[in-house]
Amino acid sequence: MKVSLSFNSSSSEDVAIMVDVLRASTTINVAMDNFKKIIPVKDIEEAQILAKNYNNSVLAGERRGAAIKGFDTGNSPIEISNFSGDVLVITTSNGTRIMEGIKAKILIGSFVNAKAVAKKALSLAESHIDLVMAGVEGRFAIEDFLGAGNIISNLKNQDLDETAIAAYMASIDASMVDKVIKNSRSARRLTEIGLSEDVDFCLKRNIYDHVPVYENGSITGKLE
Amino acid sequence: MKVSLSFNSSSSEDVAIMVDVLRASTTINVAMDNFKKIIPVKDIEEAQILAKNYNNSVLAGERRGAAIKGFDTGNSPIEISNFSGDVLVITTSNGTRIMEGIKAKILIGSFVNAKAVAKKALSLAESHIDLVMAGVEGRFAIEDFLGAGNIISNLKNQDLDETAIAAYMASIDASMVDKVIKNSRSARRLTEIGLSEDVDFCLKRNIYDHVPVYENGSITGKLE
Repeated sequence: MKVSLSFNSSSSEDVAIMVDVLRASTTINVAMDNFKKIIPVKDIEEAQILAKNYNNSVLAGERRGAAIKGFDTGNSPIEISNFSGDVLVITTSNGTRIMEGIKAKILIGSFVNAKAVAKKALSLAESHIDLVMAGVEGRFAIEDFLGAGNIISNLKNQDLDETAIAAYMASIDASMVDKVIKNSRSARRLTEIGLSEDVDFCLKRNIYDHVPVYENGSITGKLE
Repeated sequence: MKVSLSFNSSSSEDVAIMVDVLRASTTINVAMDNFKKIIPVKDIEEAQILAKNYNNSVLAGERRGAAIKGFDTGNSPIEISNFSGDVLVITTSNGTRIMEGIKAKILIGSFVNAKAVAKKALSLAESHIDLVMAGVEGRFAIEDFLGAGNIISNLKNQDLDETAIAAYMASIDASMVDKVIKNSRSARRLTEIGLSEDVDFCLKRNIYDHVPVYENGSITGKLE
């Protein structure tokens, strides 16, 4: 199985794993426990209109890390665990935009479900798993590189491309990974607005066995 | 001091370190011992014309790893040590093209002079050292990422950007670095054409204290 690592977009039409560690990938993993369906959207207005269409929905999102005025909650894995319903409508800066551009089957991966998402990708893919780092506003983000590396550590017997090998090598020392991510640009921004506990949560390893799957515009626990 | 890592081109106008581990950066380091001046050029024909302009010149180069017909030698660090003269005219696939596009002062760095090039960059730069991975035919090459990481390990108290941190983290385990580079796409191609000894040579650490400097189209040991 070919395993590659890409930034911002994917050339794979087989299976892609979207990695947005701080925080979309992690928040979506948490929300899987309390919602039947998660609908990621790009625009704030679109999210508001969509949420009104459902009886039992929660509206979540962020811009530049901060919650959006009038929304039920931010894009916070810790806050989101206090909410439940049929549908979560969520708008985030980076992850959503990227998923809409990918043709492959899309799984949502992060530290919290690294083993599970690797296993699921192997069972679904025919020839090519592409991990896609979301980055931040079009820039490389080290938390996504290291999160991808952590997922790749569960795929290391496959045919890795050189970017995937690089991410795996960088992610081997778990305590250094934690330290570097806590000091990353994204984490510092979250800490500045009082959300350092979210960063700690996003660094938990393999606390979920489930795998969020994005298909036809919404995320559930399985391919329809 | 800001230290960043870029691919293929540089936005820095201060100091850039060109990293083309297999093999241009390494070969140029070796040639520094036996030539007064090294002139890197893009085109084969340009190289041939230029070499004829000098009385005591050697013509070296490669395309896709292999030596060029009619040239004195390939882009081989081991072969080049058998030649000497006033001028080495060298044409390579990736490194030369990239240096021509960089506005900053350019130093040539690799495993063989990692410490020296880091020290020289710190002494020359005012605010920003940018390491530039040459890659292979526009693609990411792990040997350049890990070579850059090795240079960055000598700059780790500076203000590293997140790509530079990633390369440093990936390059910490020297024996894994060696193993991965020996199995890289570039190294496998060299091994196929009988040049595996070049790969071993390119992985030697800090055997040179000198720093090749590219300025006004040619490489010497110092800024003019």
